[in-house]
Amino acid sequence: MAPSPRDASPALQDRMNDVVEGVNKTIARLLPESDLAEAPLYEAMRYGTLNGGKRLRPFLVMESAALFGVDAMRARRTAAAVEFVHCYSLIHDDLPAMDDAQLRRGKPATHVAFDQATAILAGDALLALAFEVLTDSDTHEDPRVRCELVTMLAHAAGPQGLCGGQMLDIIGEKADFDLGTISRMQRMKTGKLISFACEAGAVLGKAGDPQRRALVNYANDLGLAFQVTDDILDVEGSAAETGKDSGKDGKAGKSTFVSTMGKDPARARAEMLVAQAKAHLNIFQGRADTLKEMADYVLQRRA
Amino acid sequence: MAPSPRDASPALQDRMNDVVEGVNKTIARLLPESDLAEAPLYEAMRYGTLNGGKRLRPFLVMESAALFGVDAMRARRTAAAVEFVHCYSLIHDDLPAMDDAQLRRGKPATHVAFDQATAILAGDALLALAFEVLTDSDTHEDPRVRCELVTMLAHAAGPQGLCGGQMLDIIGEKADFDLGTISRMQRMKTGKLISFACEAGAVLGKAGDPQRRALVNYANDLGLAFQVTDDILDVEGSAAETGKDSGKDGKAGKSTFVSTMGKDPARARAEMLVAQAKAHLNIFQGRADTLKEMADYVLQRRA
Repeated sequence: MAPSPRDASPALQDRMNDVVEGVNKTIARLLPESDLAEAPLYEAMRYGTLNGGKRLRPFLVMESAALFGVDAMRARRTAAAVEFVHCYSLIHDDLPAMDDAQLRRGKPATHVAFDQATAILAGDALLALAFEVLTDSDTHEDPRVRCELVTMLAHAAGPQGLCGGQMLDIIGEKADFDLGTISRMQRMKTGKLISFACEAGAVLGKAGDPQRRALVNYANDLGLAFQVTDDILDVEGSAAETGKDSGKDGKAGKSTFVSTMGKDPARARAEMLVAQAKAHLNIFQGRADTLKEMADYVLQRRA
Repeated sequence: MAPSPRDASPALQDRMNDVVEGVNKTIARLLPESDLAEAPLYEAMRYGTLNGGKRLRPFLVMESAALFGVDAMRARRTAAAVEFVHCYSLIHDDLPAMDDAQLRRGKPATHVAFDQATAILAGDALLALAFEVLTDSDTHEDPRVRCELVTMLAHAAGPQGLCGGQMLDIIGEKADFDLGTISRMQRMKTGKLISFACEAGAVLGKAGDPQRRALVNYANDLGLAFQVTDDILDVEGSAAETGKDSGKDGKAGKSTFVSTMGKDPARARAEMLVAQAKAHLNIFQGRADTLKEMADYVLQRRA
């Protein structure tokens, strides 16, 4: 029997709260308030990032980095960078020319709270800033590591990652995609950034190949499971729980896992993926249990 | 008497043509045609970059790098990266929510030739790709150099560069800026990327501080001169010559050098800046004459 949706365990919730608090402080420090004439840009950047997100990607960076003893202060910079890229993509995806979403995390989307021009620029600026944060020596003392992080994040953000995935998503409103194309789209749209988050911890910690590969494999399965449950929540969830307009994808005629496979097979697929994701972490012999718990949480979350 | 507008000298024109040809080949190789479902994204990226631009920024990278004997094949990657950032900013600036321009370089703007969503994503993807290009070891063998280029380019593109400048530009449609704010806006909107182009040559060549500073000073004066002449061309030029809708800034109520200073003082200012720009290059004892010629050309160009 499938487990019913539930909250995170108290231990996982504590750890998630720690990450949220830490990364929010780092983000706020990297995005100071401004009294210059261009202040609305900074306000929109803060609005689009400091908005109560669950910080899944920062969590994955912090937990992966902790496996290799990486200093948390430093890992938090990489966590902030990946969240900048995630938030930039949400700001642009919500624009009228894209998904035309009014709500994000239960509040007006950035282009609604400000205007479209400011939202476009805030997204652009967050994307650029992510790379500036990564190449600062405070992020890692070794420039090889910093370069590798930039290459990985740029790849995850670019035409073969977020941008290509969002392009497919828009094309998918008018085309029927097969399961292979939907999987590829979701890998680009969600999976690659989640993979970046997990792999970044290994890169920051100069982990060996087997450990690094284990985290990437975990992330690939987790990312797909995350997207499948997102599609299920889009059908099932209420706007009050998800903070988004629900049923939106179906209405827009988008090809999703649920529309293609049906809801029950989609849920079974997500469960299989989560089991697989957790198995990859056995190499860490019990030291990665928080990441395993997170995989369970992704499956069982309500929003 | 002010020199009348003219074309580049045959020698400068030859060198400019070489740069255009070389960098266009590099851009085309970095942006291959695609037969995937997301092909429109790649088409829009190619459309927005391979569109007959003069390649001023790549020219500055190549000429600055040549001063220090940097391999042209490698410098061309940095030249392509800066042009990706420039073209991304043009694609986004032309959007209806921003400057709402229909024409760019005499052809329909990217959002007109494709659609707004594709144009937004093509811009985003070009920005991300620029950083992926820079951190590849083909760009430079030293990861310190690659990191420094990323830091500089991200800074020039982010809230303190292009994005902040464009934010000011939009705010300036409804506010009266003083000359100090206009100068700061143009420094962010145009100057910083031109400075990046010149400084990148010095960074690639591991130049000494005085040489590097000379190139930055040259670039700062050149960038401002470029913008002042742009404002003059906006008032004087025809769409046939500039490839843009002329008189657009004045109609939009934008604060420009011309609207604030008047046309003749603006031209005198540009001439002074170009003379100053050229003087900074005396340190190279005649080896930087092509860069000096480029400064004259910026002043005297018709488009």
